Amino acid sequence: MLIDELFNCVEKNGHVCVGLDTCAEYVPVLERQKAGNDADAVLAFNKALIDATYDVCACYKLQIAYYEEMGLSGLHAYSDTLKYIRTKNCLAIADIKRGDIADTAVRYAKGHFSGDFEADFVTLSPYMGMDSVEPWLNEAHASGKGAFVLMRTSNRGMRDFQYLNVNDCSKKVYNMVGDNMAYLAAQNCGKSGYGMFGVVVGCTERDEAAEIRKNYPNLFFLIPGYGAQGGGAHDAVLLLRNGNGGVVNASRSIITAWRNADGAKEADLNFASTEARRAVIKMRDEIKEVL
Amino acid sequence: MLIDELFNCVEKNGHVCVGLDTCAEYVPVLERQKAGNDADAVLAFNKALIDATYDVCACYKLQIAYYEEMGLSGLHAYSDTLKYIRTKNCLAIADIKRGDIADTAVRYAKGHFSGDFEADFVTLSPYMGMDSVEPWLNEAHASGKGAFVLMRTSNRGMRDFQYLNVNDCSKKVYNMVGDNMAYLAAQNCGKSGYGMFGVVVGCTERDEAAEIRKNYPNLFFLIPGYGAQGGGAHDAVLLLRNGNGGVVNASRSIITAWRNADGAKEADLNFASTEARRAVIKMRDEIKEVL
Repeated sequence: MLIDELFNCVEKNGHVCVGLDTCAEYVPVLERQKAGNDADAVLAFNKALIDATYDVCACYKLQIAYYEEMGLSGLHAYSDTLKYIRTKNCLAIADIKRGDIADTAVRYAKGHFSGDFEADFVTLSPYMGMDSVEPWLNEAHASGKGAFVLMRTSNRGMRDFQYLNVNDCSKKVYNMVGDNMAYLAAQNCGKSGYGMFGVVVGCTERDEAAEIRKNYPNLFFLIPGYGAQGGGAHDAVLLLRNGNGGVVNASRSIITAWRNADGAKEADLNFASTEARRAVIKMRDEIKEVL
Repeated sequence: MLIDELFNCVEKNGHVCVGLDTCAEYVPVLERQKAGNDADAVLAFNKALIDATYDVCACYKLQIAYYEEMGLSGLHAYSDTLKYIRTKNCLAIADIKRGDIADTAVRYAKGHFSGDFEADFVTLSPYMGMDSVEPWLNEAHASGKGAFVLMRTSNRGMRDFQYLNVNDCSKKVYNMVGDNMAYLAAQNCGKSGYGMFGVVVGCTERDEAAEIRKNYPNLFFLIPGYGAQGGGAHDAVLLLRNGNGGVVNASRSIITAWRNADGAKEADLNFASTEARRAVIKMRDEIKEVL
């Protein structure tokens, strides 16, 4: 089961999930001019970032919005980035937050578990209900893939719907998502003890982190909210279990780290990706130290 | 405001939203062979369908999953279909159900309100909260576009989360989405009396339809669930207001109508699109009769 592979990657390389939420503005100016167009600049930068970090991170996550913004050429870069990650034998999470039902869900799954947009894991949004998640499970079984379902995110607006009290106030909406996912996980469990499908849990709400981890021991967490959104190593580790059970995503703090380095004005891909590697190692070690 | 244009399209052409959820299997065999590849077959079929229906429907809706399944070539067909709809001066809803926050939402909006994937309206999923909807509002103001946010869908699994009782059981999760959207609509209201952003409300739950329409008078509804999912004209009209205020989507019953016609085995694009036109007119008239 693929979740076991991700578990092993964490054991080997630490918890950092490198977010390739890459747009042309994040690419050093000189390299951007050299590339000619935005999509090529992004692809070249992604390849350099992957070369520089693949042995110090658990996996990669691509936020597809950054590529859809560029239109067809952006999706070519998205596709080629995923292919490049596979050549390094690394795992890629497609952060697509899709959520649809029945035949539509199957088509999405075929589109993102195989072909041009093949990724290892996808992210899913549960608003439509569990029949928007279950079709992905069948497809994941067939193709050896996985998914993370949004449970409790890390943004301000999460309180609008995820935090609504339900069932006479004993639970919140996000608990209902978690309960359903824990049930699925129990039926589809890997050797590492984690369910085939995990959930997204942000590390911004320190107070609830330990309780969430305790309530959902068999769910592997994809953890956003580190860095810019206010979460730190001390918050993230509360969502781990025996030093594993989660990957912590960071994007801008890694891929634009070069901007804050001496010599940024003359930065090339080598310079920028070396700074990215430094940022990944720093984050990896911060988390390990607190564990 | 674009919602007023959609309102006018309903006045002029009726309530049918033609769902171009097109895959190669829905294209007549002879035409599929002629096209050479799936994406070209889908594009040719879409163009024929648009030619045959643009004067008898309110708008089109493209379920992007059907195109993402085919990879890059599928998204070329998606892009070309949207362009073709614009040449007919018709409105297109991109059924993408995206839902993400902040900068990511802005990038999605730029990607789907302009460039290769430019559509008139998009569908959005609200699970992450209102800060996953608001960035689209700014972009929609800038580009003259619109959106429909999932409120109460038409699938079995909608009961998993949308129907959870909140606030001491006086409301459901979907009401909270509706209340937030009604508030947005009051601040961004078109001449037709409807908010710039509407909501998705399925026509499968007859008992609640009248109440939902009464509670949200300023929200324009995108209505799925007609036909295959069990909703009929009598159900759909309960979600309308003064004969307008909603478009009713149907896809398979229109675009595969040719399969049930005499002579289906030798069907070509002309045959198939003529049957689609017949199906649209039938559905349009069924709704008008009940009004």
